[in-house]
Amino acid sequence: MGRFGAVATPAFMPVGTHGAVRALLAEDLEKLGFGMILANALHVYLRPGVELVERFGGLKRFMGYQGGILTDSGGYQVFSLSPFVKVFDDGVLFRSPLDGAMHRLSPKDVVVIQEKIGSDIHMPLDQPVGYPASEAQTKAALGRTLDWLKASLKAKNPERGALFGIVQGGVFPELRVRASIEASELPVAGFALGGFSLGEPKNLMWELASRTIESLDPARPRYLMGVGTPADLLEGVRLGVDMFDCILPTRLARHGQLYTSKGSVRLKNALSRSNEEPIDPLCDCYACKTFSLGYLAHLYRIGDPSVLRLNTLHNLRYYGKLLEEARHAIGSGRYDQWVAAKLSRLSSEREGNG
Amino acid sequence: MGRFGAVATPAFMPVGTHGAVRALLAEDLEKLGFGMILANALHVYLRPGVELVERFGGLKRFMGYQGGILTDSGGYQVFSLSPFVKVFDDGVLFRSPLDGAMHRLSPKDVVVIQEKIGSDIHMPLDQPVGYPASEAQTKAALGRTLDWLKASLKAKNPERGALFGIVQGGVFPELRVRASIEASELPVAGFALGGFSLGEPKNLMWELASRTIESLDPARPRYLMGVGTPADLLEGVRLGVDMFDCILPTRLARHGQLYTSKGSVRLKNALSRSNEEPIDPLCDCYACKTFSLGYLAHLYRIGDPSVLRLNTLHNLRYYGKLLEEARHAIGSGRYDQWVAAKLSRLSSEREGNG
Repeated sequence: MGRFGAVATPAFMPVGTHGAVRALLAEDLEKLGFGMILANALHVYLRPGVELVERFGGLKRFMGYQGGILTDSGGYQVFSLSPFVKVFDDGVLFRSPLDGAMHRLSPKDVVVIQEKIGSDIHMPLDQPVGYPASEAQTKAALGRTLDWLKASLKAKNPERGALFGIVQGGVFPELRVRASIEASELPVAGFALGGFSLGEPKNLMWELASRTIESLDPARPRYLMGVGTPADLLEGVRLGVDMFDCILPTRLARHGQLYTSKGSVRLKNALSRSNEEPIDPLCDCYACKTFSLGYLAHLYRIGDPSVLRLNTLHNLRYYGKLLEEARHAIGSGRYDQWVAAKLSRLSSEREGNG
Repeated sequence: MGRFGAVATPAFMPVGTHGAVRALLAEDLEKLGFGMILANALHVYLRPGVELVERFGGLKRFMGYQGGILTDSGGYQVFSLSPFVKVFDDGVLFRSPLDGAMHRLSPKDVVVIQEKIGSDIHMPLDQPVGYPASEAQTKAALGRTLDWLKASLKAKNPERGALFGIVQGGVFPELRVRASIEASELPVAGFALGGFSLGEPKNLMWELASRTIESLDPARPRYLMGVGTPADLLEGVRLGVDMFDCILPTRLARHGQLYTSKGSVRLKNALSRSNEEPIDPLCDCYACKTFSLGYLAHLYRIGDPSVLRLNTLHNLRYYGKLLEEARHAIGSGRYDQWVAAKLSRLSSEREGNG
C-alpha cells in the first residue's frame, strides 16, 4: 500500500480510451475519486488528433478534467487492431483501422505524442506478442521492446510526465525475469506488466506475474495492464501490484450487468424490473442512492442512454470501494483474511439473478 | 402570462414519453426548471405497465422526480402507431406496436390509468383525424371526442389530478369553434388544442388555432399539443397559448443539432471539431459552462452517450430561456417588438454552420 503522485495505491484506473470514460463526464469521474484514468495515446492520435488536443490545451483541458491521466502507448492496439502492420528497428508502419491511412511511428514519436497530450504517466512503444507465441518470436519482440524503451527514455523530456517501462516476455519465465532485471536497471518511473490476460490460463498468468514482480526493483510502482475481474484485483494486490486498468466494469455496465455485494445482477432479467430496492443497498453510488433497480431496468429496456451513465457509475464505484477496502485491510495487517472472506462472496457472483 | 399550479406560463414541457426525458435524469430536469414535463399514458401503460408504476408509488417516485407531469392520453398514438385499431362508441380496440397484444381501452380506463400513474394534468381519450381528412370524417371524430370527454369527466376522481379537454375539429373552422364552445361549457381544468402540426400549412394552423382560442373560455389555460419550433412558440404565445410540448429540442439534440443565439450548429460539421468556444457563449447551461463545442463534437464522433445528455440539456435550456424572455417581454408590455427582433435572428437559424 502506498501512493503514486496523488493516487493511493493499490489503485484502479477507469478506461477512457479516446479521452472520455464512456457515458461519464469529468465531474462524474472526479466524484468517483479514482485520481487517475487511462487513455490511449494511439487512439487519441488517430482521433481527435494530437494537434487538436494540443491546441485545446491538452487532454485534461479538452475533457474539462482535473485528475490524473495515464496514457497507454497503443503498441498493443497497433498490433491487434490495424489491418496492416510492419515492424522496423526504429518503429512501426501501420494502417489506421479508422480510415485506412498509413502511419509511421517511432518510439520517440510515441513519447512526444504523450507529452503533447499532457498525460501524467506515459507508456513506451512496445512490441507485444499474442498468446500463444513461440519462444523465439517472444524473445525477438522482447529485445525490440527493450531497445525501444531505451530510445523512449532518450527522447523523454523529464519535465513532461513520467515514463514507465513495459515488461514483456510472454509465457517464458526466463524472458520475464530478464525483462524485469533489464527494466529495473533503467531510470523508468515504474513498471507496466504487459502481455497478460490474452487468453493464457489464469494460474500461468499469476505464476508469471509473480516471477516478474519478484525480479523488479521493489521501490517503483507496478502496473498490471488490462487486468481484471474483482478477484483478479485481489490476487494482483496480494502479489504486490499497485495499479490496474480494465474495460470490464465499464463494458459490463453498458451491457446492463452490475456488480453487487451479493453477486452480479442483470438489468435484462425480468426480476430486475419489479425490484424496488437499489442495485445494491450497501452501495453509496449516485445510482444506488437515487434510483431503484426497477427504474434502471425500465431505462435499459426503453434504450435510454441515462442508464449507461448510472450503470457505469455503479460498477466503477464497486471497483473503487473494493480497492478502498483492500488498502484498509493491508493497512491493518489482515489482507489475506479479508481476501478469503471476499473471494467466497465473489465466487457466488455468477449465480446472482442473471 | 400567468401561472398554472407551480408553473409560470407560457411554459414549455419537455417530452418524456415513457417516464424519462431521454438522456436526462430527474436531477437534470429539476435543474432545468421547467416545472412540468410531458409523459404519455398509453406508452407507460404498455411499458413498464400501470400496475408496476403504481406499485413503485406512481411515476414521480419511480423516476425520482419532484416536478409536475402532464400525461397525454395516447389517443393520438393509438391511431398513429398501432398496426390495428377499431373504434367503438365506448372506446378503442387496438394492437400494441410493442408485442402485438390486443388492448381495449374506454375513456374511463384512460382516466383511471392517469390517476394511477399519478400525473398532475390528464388528457382524455380522443379520436384525432389525420391531415387531410374530410369534413364528414372530422365531424364524426369530433362528436365521439366530445362524448368521450363527457365520459372522462364522469369517471374522474377530482382529487387525483386535473382533466383538460382536447379540442379537435381538423381544418374546419366551424368544427373548431363548435368544439371550443362545447368544451368551454364543461368543467375541464384547461384546453388542449389537438390535431395540429400534422402536415397542414403553417398559416392554416395559426388561423385555426386563433379561431379556436377566441372561442374558448379565456379563464382557463390553453395547451397547444406537439408544437413546435422556437418561432412557433413565439407565435403561439402571441395568440394566447399557455403551454407547449414538442419532441423537437430533445430529438434534434440527439442528432447533434444545437440551437444557439446565432443560428443552429451541427456537431457533425467539421468546423465544430476545432471550435474552442462553448456551443453558445451566451448560454448558461451546464454544457456551455463546462465544455467546448470541439469536445462535444469529439464525444459525438466517438459515439459517447454523454454527448446526448449535454446536447439535450443545452437545447432544452434554449427553449426554457426563450420562454423566460417571452414572459419578461409580456410583463413589460413589449412582446411584439421583442418577437420581431427575435424572429429576425431565428430566420438565420438554418444558415448556421450546418
